[in-house]
Amino acid sequence: MLPEFILAFQTYGRMSSAKDNAVLICHALSGDAHVSGCHEEDGRTGWWEMLVGPGRAIDTDRYFVICSNVLGGCKGSSGPSSPHPVDGEPWALRFPVVTIWDIVRAQERLVRHLGISRLRAVVGGSMGGMQALAWARLFPENVNSVISMATAGRHTAQNIAWNDIGRRAIMGDPRWRAGYYYGFEPPSHGQAIARMIGHVTYLSEEVMEQKFARRLRERDFHAYGFGVEFEVESYLAYQARSFNQRFDPNSYLYITRALDYFDWAQWDGSYVAAFERCRCNFLILSYTSDWLYPSARNAELAESAQIAGRFVSYHDLTTHLGHDAFLVLEEPQTSLVSQFLSDIHS
Amino acid sequence: MLPEFILAFQTYGRMSSAKDNAVLICHALSGDAHVSGCHEEDGRTGWWEMLVGPGRAIDTDRYFVICSNVLGGCKGSSGPSSPHPVDGEPWALRFPVVTIWDIVRAQERLVRHLGISRLRAVVGGSMGGMQALAWARLFPENVNSVISMATAGRHTAQNIAWNDIGRRAIMGDPRWRAGYYYGFEPPSHGQAIARMIGHVTYLSEEVMEQKFARRLRERDFHAYGFGVEFEVESYLAYQARSFNQRFDPNSYLYITRALDYFDWAQWDGSYVAAFERCRCNFLILSYTSDWLYPSARNAELAESAQIAGRFVSYHDLTTHLGHDAFLVLEEPQTSLVSQFLSDIHS
Repeated sequence: MLPEFILAFQTYGRMSSAKDNAVLICHALSGDAHVSGCHEEDGRTGWWEMLVGPGRAIDTDRYFVICSNVLGGCKGSSGPSSPHPVDGEPWALRFPVVTIWDIVRAQERLVRHLGISRLRAVVGGSMGGMQALAWARLFPENVNSVISMATAGRHTAQNIAWNDIGRRAIMGDPRWRAGYYYGFEPPSHGQAIARMIGHVTYLSEEVMEQKFARRLRERDFHAYGFGVEFEVESYLAYQARSFNQRFDPNSYLYITRALDYFDWAQWDGSYVAAFERCRCNFLILSYTSDWLYPSARNAELAESAQIAGRFVSYHDLTTHLGHDAFLVLEEPQTSLVSQFLSDIHS
Repeated sequence: MLPEFILAFQTYGRMSSAKDNAVLICHALSGDAHVSGCHEEDGRTGWWEMLVGPGRAIDTDRYFVICSNVLGGCKGSSGPSSPHPVDGEPWALRFPVVTIWDIVRAQERLVRHLGISRLRAVVGGSMGGMQALAWARLFPENVNSVISMATAGRHTAQNIAWNDIGRRAIMGDPRWRAGYYYGFEPPSHGQAIARMIGHVTYLSEEVMEQKFARRLRERDFHAYGFGVEFEVESYLAYQARSFNQRFDPNSYLYITRALDYFDWAQWDGSYVAAFERCRCNFLILSYTSDWLYPSARNAELAESAQIAGRFVSYHDLTTHLGHDAFLVLEEPQTSLVSQFLSDIHS
């Protein structure tokens, strides 16, 4: 039980007087509410600048865009690093385990708080896609359409294994201190390992070959030692350091557990039965080189939606960019998303 | 420089008077010299019992089979846990970094020591396949045939990344003590993480689904916590504990580094040019669900051998068992290997 919680959110564009132009964007594991535009504070641009903004596929001149940090996160929303209401100390492991359903229920309160009774669309990739699917199932009357990209209806044993290893790396780091490390050095070593594992699963083997292959950091020189030797080693280390500066290891535990628990068919027994409880239209995108949540698993979702009588547009996009394609592939994502949003409008 | 070294080895069957029936078997990352039969000491059977023994594909009634623990290992051969000849303390990180070529050069001394001038065959899977290829290139006059299974001519960026993350997990474990942990608790947590990553890469997603899917340890009960919840988590933890009981973390560092450094074309510029320097016949086997060293990379080796004018028999075996198939797939491996060995004999 959470007696109360905070959701950090950002909005872009203007709500129409009929309050019928709202689009909710759901972020993936390491995302936050800052989906577009440039923060004056830190100069960072939004994580989905490519797709969200004035004149973009999710056009902030046209839609009122909302993005909130997930419950359990560490970017302003309540999570394990937030103060416990009774003692003011960080919740740490006292924070309740949250599910994708809980994350979405919290978002629904935010949407209601903004006075919106029906969302034009809920959009997300990866874990964001799971949230979009959960919206369709939990609040069928409040969602006009769902766009899910590079997602999964549930984790396979391999998906669970990668997250399990990452969590063990964090929880086995002596600095983790059973979760009560706030005020001390955080378990950055463990989280670095977890992030590096995740990062490799987000890239295709092909794109890693293009970027790094076997290139050495020092040209043509084998040090024959255990330091950083190959460029790919240096890249992963950089990614891990950067992640450690902005992410709370306990949030990593909570959010990956939410991913592992998620099962789109949890309440209904089958994907088809779950889609039968939905009322919205679906755009489902997958990516040929995504081996974390492969095309076949997205196609299965699309097929189930169709069998259940939902309108669904499914596209398997040819790309070498792997799972991360949903974050970086400008076309045909821009065309497909803007077309779908226009169609459901008309 | 190693002033001296020990190789632990086992032999099976009898050497013919002409010393022309010897088959050398090369083990993979976590293997040892105990390839077949039952140890009286610990009751363990050999790691390739399926393929090696009386009446098996590599028939110890017919061939004199040799298997040695790799240089840098921890199963009797000289490695980082062996005593340094000067001070008697474990070498630890003073042990020189070894390559696949070094491992094979050491094996060649053993073969010479046994009075064998020409091996009937060198056989190995995964890292063992790399050694078999290296034998063909380094000692073309001393090898009649090579059987390589589920191997790679060189690591891709993704292959290097997995090993890098495993090494970091070990080296970031405070118990690692810069490699000088002998006499203290070893960095078992780090090595567990490394092993779990490796283990997932050895299995196909399909076989993991068959074995575990999303089954829970406690039936139908979500604990909603961070303990072991899914069966796959319990399985990986068990595998890691078992590995920690029998493997030295420093050997893990040395051997994975040897894998990352290996490039079959290192001396010749291309696979074809390397095969042009060989004289032996090749049997190359790959496995459709092996995503660590996929079929295409084995096919590229086979094609290069053919272009170089070598006799090569290449088979891509249909299986859901992933990379580990070479260790467990009885047929058609038994038929293919025994047929190939008979053909080169006649």
